[in-house]
Formats: sequence, structure tokens, C-alpha cells
Amino acid sequence: MSESKPNSIFADRISQVPQSFIREILKVATQPDVISFAGGLPNGDLFPIDEIKNAANKVLEEKGKEALQYANTEGYLPLREYIAKRYLEKQGLQIDPKNILITTGSQQGLDLLGKILLNENDDVIMEEPGYLGAIQAFSVYRPNLIPVSVDDQGADCDQLRDAINQHNPKLFYTVPNFHNPSGITYCEENRRQVANIVTGTRTLIIEDNPYGDLRFEGEAKSSFYKLAPKNTLLLGSFSKTIVPAFRTGWIVAPDDILEKLIIAKQAADLHSNYFAQRIIHQYLIDNDLDVHIENIIKVYHQQKQIMMNAIKTHFPDNIQHTNPEGGMFIWVTLPEPFSAMDLFNVCIKDKVAFVPGEPFYLNKAIKNTLRLNFSCSNKDSIEIGIKRLSSAINKLIK
Amino acid sequence: MSESKPNSIFADRISQVPQSFIREILKVATQPDVISFAGGLPNGDLFPIDEIKNAANKVLEEKGKEALQYANTEGYLPLREYIAKRYLEKQGLQIDPKNILITTGSQQGLDLLGKILLNENDDVIMEEPGYLGAIQAFSVYRPNLIPVSVDDQGADCDQLRDAINQHNPKLFYTVPNFHNPSGITYCEENRRQVANIVTGTRTLIIEDNPYGDLRFEGEAKSSFYKLAPKNTLLLGSFSKTIVPAFRTGWIVAPDDILEKLIIAKQAADLHSNYFAQRIIHQYLIDNDLDVHIENIIKVYHQQKQIMMNAIKTHFPDNIQHTNPEGGMFIWVTLPEPFSAMDLFNVCIKDKVAFVPGEPFYLNKAIKNTLRLNFSCSNKDSIEIGIKRLSSAINKLIK
Repeated sequence: MSESKPNSIFADRISQVPQSFIREILKVATQPDVISFAGGLPNGDLFPIDEIKNAANKVLEEKGKEALQYANTEGYLPLREYIAKRYLEKQGLQIDPKNILITTGSQQGLDLLGKILLNENDDVIMEEPGYLGAIQAFSVYRPNLIPVSVDDQGADCDQLRDAINQHNPKLFYTVPNFHNPSGITYCEENRRQVANIVTGTRTLIIEDNPYGDLRFEGEAKSSFYKLAPKNTLLLGSFSKTIVPAFRTGWIVAPDDILEKLIIAKQAADLHSNYFAQRIIHQYLIDNDLDVHIENIIKVYHQQKQIMMNAIKTHFPDNIQHTNPEGGMFIWVTLPEPFSAMDLFNVCIKDKVAFVPGEPFYLNKAIKNTLRLNFSCSNKDSIEIGIKRLSSAINKLIK
Repeated sequence: MSESKPNSIFADRISQVPQSFIREILKVATQPDVISFAGGLPNGDLFPIDEIKNAANKVLEEKGKEALQYANTEGYLPLREYIAKRYLEKQGLQIDPKNILITTGSQQGLDLLGKILLNENDDVIMEEPGYLGAIQAFSVYRPNLIPVSVDDQGADCDQLRDAINQHNPKLFYTVPNFHNPSGITYCEENRRQVANIVTGTRTLIIEDNPYGDLRFEGEAKSSFYKLAPKNTLLLGSFSKTIVPAFRTGWIVAPDDILEKLIIAKQAADLHSNYFAQRIIHQYLIDNDLDVHIENIIKVYHQQKQIMMNAIKTHFPDNIQHTNPEGGMFIWVTLPEPFSAMDLFNVCIKDKVAFVPGEPFYLNKAIKNTLRLNFSCSNKDSIEIGIKRLSSAINKLIK
């Protein structure tokens, strides 16, 4: 832990936030001619631009004065009602709209939860590998982050039980569906075990589910909110299903936590962009979100299949990878002791990019993994890119 | 200071944030038939709805895919360039666009500055009375807030000098133009004295200037950024000049502080609503902001004059009040020992509302002040409302 100098103008907390190495990677990855599997963006070709234009015009014509004014901190009630109704219809979850707070992206949900829940040195269990944005958001509040490994079945329950018994942590942060960065999904049995372990403890599961709607294979799994309702907070977002630029996400939390979240949110930005909330609501009542999502799923599924086929054709046999049932990412493991950062340096010369896995670990000793994104590349790019990546792997490991 | 219980799930920091009493006031104030001078909203009748509609359509038609995607944390560069150019043209301030960070309203600027600068018990000078949103934003980081009085000339420089000498504070937060809540403006001489006091110390002035463009009388005054450039951070916003719902504000800060702000902002919400940034930029290049602002000024000036005339006609002689040269607020001081909260309780029965001054003070002993907003009421409402308020004052103090 590096503290600021005593005379520094800066707060100690900012010294602990990891710099986003990924920002630097993405800068390199956007050079011309580079085929990039590095990003984590939804595919802009699928954005419902015309529908959003229609919704924006309707809102401005019918309720312009209201939709452009300051609004309440909680968020637009009809939008929160829509979200509650969708939880009931899609997952059988009973959620009162008053327990939903609209946030500036689900990233703000992470910041607000850290802000109201974490004292310095409080214990938080993080998936390893895990979502870098959550590591960054929580690190501001200087907790003790405890890694628990995830594999293609879900969380390592022995590690989780030990961590909870030893530390009585406040939080366990998880992305159980089409996990970022690994693409894995917790199986039903693993979810039940996790739910059993946390039930009766003070540990709150933060179930972050930005990709859950984007399932193209297999069966939907139970939310922790169903399996361990008293121990689960939900984070959601329209960034992957409608558009990210609107920064419209939400938190589901019980009354006492929501009350504190509202106080913290009011201090943080008064309220999230209200015009965007109104446009999204108008879009949702004038269009069938499920039809739109089906279209996203169809495209992403094709792109994943093309990437999987190219990997099977071109990668050496000793390279492991996940096979996601949805979402946007495949996770690749090189044989030890090869380094994904070394591979990146070869690849960038060969005009293909990915994200080395290192920043996704609290334990930075793991250097042989990498993340591939398939949501933003077309058939040709995927095939050429994976060929280039395979050649680079062969150069490195032979 | 009330700490959480040892077994509380909540962080200690959230126990220190003052609840927004104003939220409760505003709920009462929006009852039917109540004439409300309680809000702090810009006048929605003046929102450039058609121009925003045209800008939104143009952005979606020409750059929809880009404007709806994730974007960089710093904000849309052409918008930051416009802001820099306007600082130069209007105030003669030389600011590089790279030193501007777009924030989710200027409220987020306060949160981010608190986050990167304030350790627990660090000293921060606050105006008294002062902006409640700043008290809330900073309180999350548990500083020691030191009050310095403001009157219609500006800050009390003896108090300011003593506070800086005694405490070596990190920050001095000020709204020098058409101050919220009091409506006062620091005079030129006071600004120079304040600048002299802070220059050479480590104290950074946060010059929050949401209302500065809305001057309807008198001469523009020098920014602290001109008088004490090494000690000044600027906060700005389009909420009072275009629309608040977009939550588009900004911070101007030197390189080292901006670098930390970007890290903190990335952790807080990745970036502010990008579609709104694009619409505002399109609006600004297709329209003359100054013409629009002239129109706002004309209306607010009329409304202020009507309120001032009604006050002069109906208020008892022993009631003091400010006479703002711009902005949205008039500040009223009742003779001691009368309480604005008692007056509020009389007024609300008589169907007129305002905000009692108490929450704007760190020292809660001052109970005889109140804030009147004139931006949102028409001529008849102002005249009837001030008559009702005058009757209530007469009931209370006679």
C-alpha cells in the first residue's frame, strides 16, 4: 500500500485505485489495421437508433419541459416500475419499484455501495479473475479485497466458505452470468451452494448482471436474489441491451440500504440524466425489448461460433479456453510459463489485440490468461484475427 | 459525530452526511395551490426544447452509432474545446481543453474533488451560509468544515485569514456570483483580498459558478482563476443556461489533479452521459448561446424586480433582504429572535413556501433567515405569494 506523502494535497484513498491498464491497451488496440478483440463494447451496428430517435422526439414533443428539468434522486418511477415488472416476468422475482434506484450506469451502483457500506479495511470477497471496474470502484474505499477463484462451474465454494468464516466480510461481488472477463456462468448447483454459504451470515452478495439477457445457449439459471433473498443486492443496466451512452443502470436493495444509497447518490450527482431515463422508458413502451434482444443474441451467437471454430482450427492443442453460453467474452489460458503480456507485444506488431488477464487478478502472479471479445467483430475480422493470434502464439510458445 | 454501531453494515462516512431537509420542504411546497419560492429550479418555460430536438435528431442521424456507444472518461473533446474557448472569450481565461473534465452535473465535481483531496479530518473552509449540496458532497469524506461568513461584499476576510493561518486547509469552497442561497456577489475588492490571502498557501479555491452567466445588473467581476490561478479550481454547468436534466457539468483543474479526477471518475461512473454531451455540443454550434442567455436574463430580471417591488410594498420595515445582480435567489433576514421555520409553518397553511435558512449553516444556531427563489414564478404568483408571506410575517412578529 503506497500512502501519499504527508504534505500531498491528495487523499490517501486515491493512491490505492489501480490505474486502468486496460485504457492503455485500448489506445493501442484502436490503431488503424489492428483487429481488436480487446474492447468490451456492445455492437453499435445493433443500436436501435431510429427507435431512440422516435422516443426522444415523442418525449420532447409531449413532455419536453418536464423531461429536461431537474428530477428526483430515485429515478423516473414508471421506468422503475418497468424494471420491477420485468424481474417478475423473466425471473419470477418480486421486487417493489421503491426498492430500485436508477444509477449513472451500474458502475455508479458499485461506487455508491462501496461508499455507504465500506469502512477502511472492511473485507470484500472478489471473484478471481474478476471485473476490473468493481476492483477500481471498491478500492477507493480501501477495503481488504479477498480473492475467491472462479472456474467454469462458478465460485470455489471451499475458498468462499473459508473466506466468510475467517473474515465475516460485508460483501461478495459476483457476475454469475457470462462473467467478465472469463465468460463463464455459475451452474445451478454452484449457485445453491453459494447461497447456502452466505445465508445466515452478514455477507451481502452483489449480483452484477449486465449480460444476463444475452443468453444464446443453455438454460437460464436462478438469481441469487431468489436463492438468498436477504443476502442479495442486484445491479442491472441497459448498457448491453439498449445503449451504453445513456449511462442508465440500477440497484435493487432493501429499504434501509436504499435510504442510504439515496443520500449518497444525492451528494454524488443529484440524479442520473433524466432525459435518458424518459427516452428509455418511451422506447420500452413503444417497442418489444425481447425482440430487440433476440436480434442481439442471434448476432453475438454467430460471432461466438465463428470465433470458437477459428480457435479450434488454428490454436495449438495445449491452449485452454472457455465456451460461453452468452455475453461477450471468451477466456484463454496459455500453458505455463508463457505470458499473455509477451503475447500481446507480439500480437500488436501482427495487428491483432486482446486484453491480457493480469489486471483482472488481485494476485498479480497469474500471467498466462487473456480475454477475447467477440461482440464487436464481423466474420472476416474474427477469422483473420484468430489466425494472426494463433501465429503469434506459435511464435511465442515454440 | 454519530458513529455507526460496531456491527452495522454501514460505513461510518454515511452517518455524517446531512439529510436533505430541503427534500422534505420541497415535497410540501409542491402541494396544489401552494405558491412556491422554495425550489432552486431554472424556469422550464425557457428551455430550448425545439433546438434540443433538432440537435438530438442531427446527432442521431449523422453520428448515432458513435453518440450512443461507450465513450472516454474525460468527455467529448469538441465540447471541452467549446468550454475553453468560451472561458477565453467571456472572461479572458486561458484554459487548455485537456484541463477540463466533463462531470455528471457540477455536483459530481464536488464529489470527485472531495474523493481525491480529502482525508478524514482534513480542513475545508465553507461559506456561511453556503450551498447545501457542497456540504453534503464533502461530508461523505468526513472533513472538518470551517465556516467563514459571507455578506453582500463577499467573504469575511479576517475570518478567512485566521482560518487559513490556523488550519492550513486544503479547500475553500465558494459561489462568488449570485451565491446560493443568499444571492450576493463578491465585490472586486473582496475578490482581490481573498486571492491575496490564499496565494502562496496550499489552499485551493473551488470556484463554483453555475449562475455566473445570469447577470442582469452591474459589471462582471474577476474570476479567482484570474486573480489566484495556481490556487483555483473551476466548476461549471449547463444546468442553468441550457437544461438541468442532462447533468452536464465540468471541472477545470491542473494536470496532476485532473489525472486523479479521471481515475476517480472512471471508478464512479466510467463517463457522463455521452449522448447528452453530443446534443449539447450540436446545440452550441447550431445556436447562439448568448442570445438564449439574454432571454433567460430578461425574464429573471423582470421576475426579480417584481419580487423586490412586492417586498418593498408589503414587508414590514424591519425585514432585511439582499438585492441580487443576477441568479435566482433573494435572501431574507427576520429580526431576532424570530424563526424562519416557525414562519414556514404559518406560511404553508397560507399556501406559500420558501426554504428556511437553517440547513445552509454549519452553525445551526442561526434561525432567522430564509431563501426566496424568483426564477420559477410568474408576475401574479410572485405578487400574491409575497403578499401571503408578508401577512404571515406580520402574524408571526406582531
